[in-house]
Amino acid sequence: MKILVTGFDPFGPDKVNPSWQTAAALPDKIFGSQIIKKMLPTVFAEAKDQLEADIHEIQPDLVLCLGLAGGRSKITLEKVAINYVDARIPDNSGAQPIGALDPLGPDAYFENYEVKELVDRLQQQHLPVAMSLSAGSYVCNATSYFLLNILHHQYPKAVGAFIHIPYTPEMGYVDQPSLPLAVDAQTITAYLTEMIQDLKEEKHD
Amino acid sequence: MKILVTGFDPFGPDKVNPSWQTAAALPDKIFGSQIIKKMLPTVFAEAKDQLEADIHEIQPDLVLCLGLAGGRSKITLEKVAINYVDARIPDNSGAQPIGALDPLGPDAYFENYEVKELVDRLQQQHLPVAMSLSAGSYVCNATSYFLLNILHHQYPKAVGAFIHIPYTPEMGYVDQPSLPLAVDAQTITAYLTEMIQDLKEEKHD
Amino acid sequence: MKILVTGFDPFGPDKVNPSWQTAAALPDKIFGSQIIKKMLPTVFAEAKDQLEADIHEIQPDLVLCLGLAGGRSKITLEKVAINYVDARIPDNSGAQPIGALDPLGPDAYFENYEVKELVDRLQQQHLPVAMSLSAGSYVCNATSYFLLNILHHQYPKAVGAFIHIPYTPEMGYVDQPSLPLAVDAQTITAYLTEMIQDLKEEKHD
Amino acid sequence: MKILVTGFDPFGPDKVNPSWQTAAALPDKIFGSQIIKKMLPTVFAEAKDQLEADIHEIQPDLVLCLGLAGGRSKITLEKVAINYVDARIPDNSGAQPIGALDPLGPDAYFENYEVKELVDRLQQQHLPVAMSLSAGSYVCNATSYFLLNILHHQYPKAVGAFIHIPYTPEMGYVDQPSLPLAVDAQTITAYLTEMIQDLKEEKHD
Repeated sequence: MKILVTGFDPFGPDKVNPSWQTAAALPDKIFGSQIIKKMLPTVFAEAKDQLEADIHEIQPDLVLCLGLAGGRSKITLEKVAINYVDARIPDNSGAQPIGALDPLGPDAYFENYEVKELVDRLQQQHLPVAMSLSAGSYVCNATSYFLLNILHHQYPKAVGAFIHIPYTPEMGYVDQPSLPLAVDAQTITAYLTEMIQDLKEEKHD
Repeated sequence: MKILVTGFDPFGPDKVNPSWQTAAALPDKIFGSQIIKKMLPTVFAEAKDQLEADIHEIQPDLVLCLGLAGGRSKITLEKVAINYVDARIPDNSGAQPIGALDPLGPDAYFENYEVKELVDRLQQQHLPVAMSLSAGSYVCNATSYFLLNILHHQYPKAVGAFIHIPYTPEMGYVDQPSLPLAVDAQTITAYLTEMIQDLKEEKHD
Repeated sequence: MKILVTGFDPFGPDKVNPSWQTAAALPDKIFGSQIIKKMLPTVFAEAKDQLEADIHEIQPDLVLCLGLAGGRSKITLEKVAINYVDARIPDNSGAQPIGALDPLGPDAYFENYEVKELVDRLQQQHLPVAMSLSAGSYVCNATSYFLLNILHHQYPKAVGAFIHIPYTPEMGYVDQPSLPLAVDAQTITAYLTEMIQDLKEEKHD
Repeated sequence: MKILVTGFDPFGPDKVNPSWQTAAALPDKIFGSQIIKKMLPTVFAEAKDQLEADIHEIQPDLVLCLGLAGGRSKITLEKVAINYVDARIPDNSGAQPIGALDPLGPDAYFENYEVKELVDRLQQQHLPVAMSLSAGSYVCNATSYFLLNILHHQYPKAVGAFIHIPYTPEMGYVDQPSLPLAVDAQTITAYLTEMIQDLKEEKHD
C-alpha cells in the first residue's frame, strides 16, 4: 500500500510549520506500507492543484494531510470539511478569499473513515489526541475539502484524512499551548499504524 | 411576518436554560413582526417533532433556535449543522445516541442566510457576538440540522438560524465565562431587528 | 465618606481603556458617598506618583483602582499584589522594566478587605465576577502593589482594592472574551454599594 | 549535593497523580547529585509535616515539589506562594479549609531562585514550560508556602522550588490540555540539570 502524507510550508509570522516537520519526521515504511511525504504551499489556489497532481502521480490508498492549528492543545483529527473560506490573514501568495470554496459542491464532506473510533483507540494508547468538528476556514479546511472532493469523485476507494498539529515550544508562542515535535511524530506514526492495519483487514475481506 | 423563536428546557445538572430564558425575555413584536416563542425539550427524538409541528402550525418566515453552549464567552451565530450526533451526556429522556442524524441526509447544511455579514453588523453595534463553525454534536446541532432539513424540503423561502447562548452568572459556573441575561436579550433583539429588516427588503424586491 | 476610583489611559494598540471608561460611567454619589474619578497614565513611574498625590489630596476612605485584563471573561477582584514587574510590552513612556518593584518591600501585599466574601455577595447578585490570585506583572499589578504599600504605611484605616475589567466588544478582539461596558459599570456600582455599606457599618461599631 | 523531589498522591476523582509519576520517573543521579524522591499525601495538615520531616532527615541543597495543575497546557514554574487557602474540593482526609495558612506569616514568599531565567533557558531548549504567578489556593500552594517558610527560617542556603505538571492523556480528561509523562520527565530532568549546574557554580564561588 502507498500512503501520501502532506504538510504545509510556514506562513504568517512563523519560520517553521510543525505540520511539515511532523511529516518529514515519519518513518519511510510503516507495517510494510510506503510513506510518501510532500510539502504543500500555504496558498489556496496552489495547494489544491499540487495535492491533486500528487494523488494522480502516487495513486495512494490513504492521503493524510497535516496542518497547523495554533492555540489548540491537542493533536486533533478532523471529522468534517466545509465548503467555506474566510481567510483571517493572507496566504503565502497574498490572497485572502472569503466565500464558497466550490459554488457547485456540497456544504460539507465528512472524512470517509470512522474518525471517532480512531480517536478512541489513540486515547487508549495515552496519546494527546481529540476529535475536532471544525477545521476552521483557512487553507487547512480548504485543502481538506478539496481532498475529500477529489477522492469522492475520482478515487472513491481511497481514504482521506486531515489532522491538525498544535504549536511546538520552539515556535515561541509562550502564552499558547504547545506539544513537542517528538510527540507529534510518535502520535502520527501510531495513527498511521492503526489506519494501515484497518486498510489491510478491509482488503482481506 | 411571523418569527418563531425557540429555546430549550434545562438539562444535565442545570436548573435553568438561558436559551429559553432569552427567548422568553424577547418583546412580542419587533418592527411590526410577531415573535412567537416556544420551548423545546432537550430530547433528541422530541425536539425535532415538536419543532416540525410548531413550524407547520405557525408557518413562520424566520425560525431562530437558541441553545446553550456552556464554556463559550460570546453569543455565537452558527454557520453550519452537521449530520452527526455524539451525545456527551444523556438527554432528558435518558437517550445518548451516537452516529448519523439522518442516514440519507447530506453531511451538513449551511444556514440559509449570510451569517458572517450579520455577525459583522452586530459587532459594529458593540454586541458580544462571533460566528461559530461548529454547533457541537448534541441536541443543539441535531435541532439545527433538522430545522435546515425541514426548511430545505418543505419551506425553502423561510430562513433558519441557530444561535448559542453562553452560561449566565446565576448558573454558578464560577470558573467559566458567562454573560448576563439582559445582554443576551438585548443582543438577540438586535439580531432579530436586523434579520426582519433584511427579510422585509427582500419582500419588496 | 470619600471614594477614589481610578482607571488607566489606553495603551499598546488600544484606542480606549475600559477601566477608565467604567470609572467615568459611575454615578457621582453612591449611598451618600462621593465618588471621585481619576485617570492614571499607563506608565510605571508616573502611575504610582499620581496615585499617591491623589490620595494625599483626597484622603479617601476607599481607593478602588480599575485596570484592563484582556483575555479574561469575568470582572476579577484581585486578592494579592506582588513585588515583581515583567513588562510584556513597553508602557506609554516606552519603559519595559523587569525585576522587583520595591527592593526593600515585602514579596506581596494582600488587599486589606475580605475579597472572597465580596465575590460571593456579587455572584449571588448574578454579576459576572470572580476572585483572581494574580494581577499579572504589568502596570496593573505594580499600581496595586504601590497602592497597598502607601495605605499600609500612611493610611492604615483606608481600604485598597484592585479590580480587572475584560475587553469590551467595541475593542474589536473578536476572538477574545468581552463584556459590554454597561455590565462593567453595573457591576462596579454594585461592588461599591457593598463596600460602602461595610465601611459604614464598621464606622458605627 | 542532595536533591529532594516530591510529588503528591492521587486526589479527587483521579487514580494517578502525574506529579508523583514524574518524580518516580527521574534518574537517581543527575550530574553527580543524588535525587531522592518522596511522595507527599494530598492532605493539608500532613503534607507540611512530612515535607518538614523529609527535609530534616535528608538535609537537601535543593527541594523541588511537583504538583498537578489540571487544565494548564504547560509545565509551569511557580514564582510565588501565598499565605491563603481556599480548597475547592476536600483533601484526602476530608478537610476543606479556607483562610490564612499561617496567621503570623507574611502574605507571600517568592521562590528563592531566578525563576524567570530558568524558564528562559528551558524555553531555549524547546521544552513546553512557562512561568506562573499563581500556584492556586489548594494543597500545592500551601505546600509551596510551607516549604519556603521552612527554608527561610531553618535552611536559608537551600533552594526551594514548586513546579506544576498538566494532566496526562491517560487521565482521560479528553476536553482538557495534557502532556505525555515522558515529556514531563524529560523537562524536569532538564530543569534539575540546569539548577544543579547553577548550585555547583555558586559553591565554587
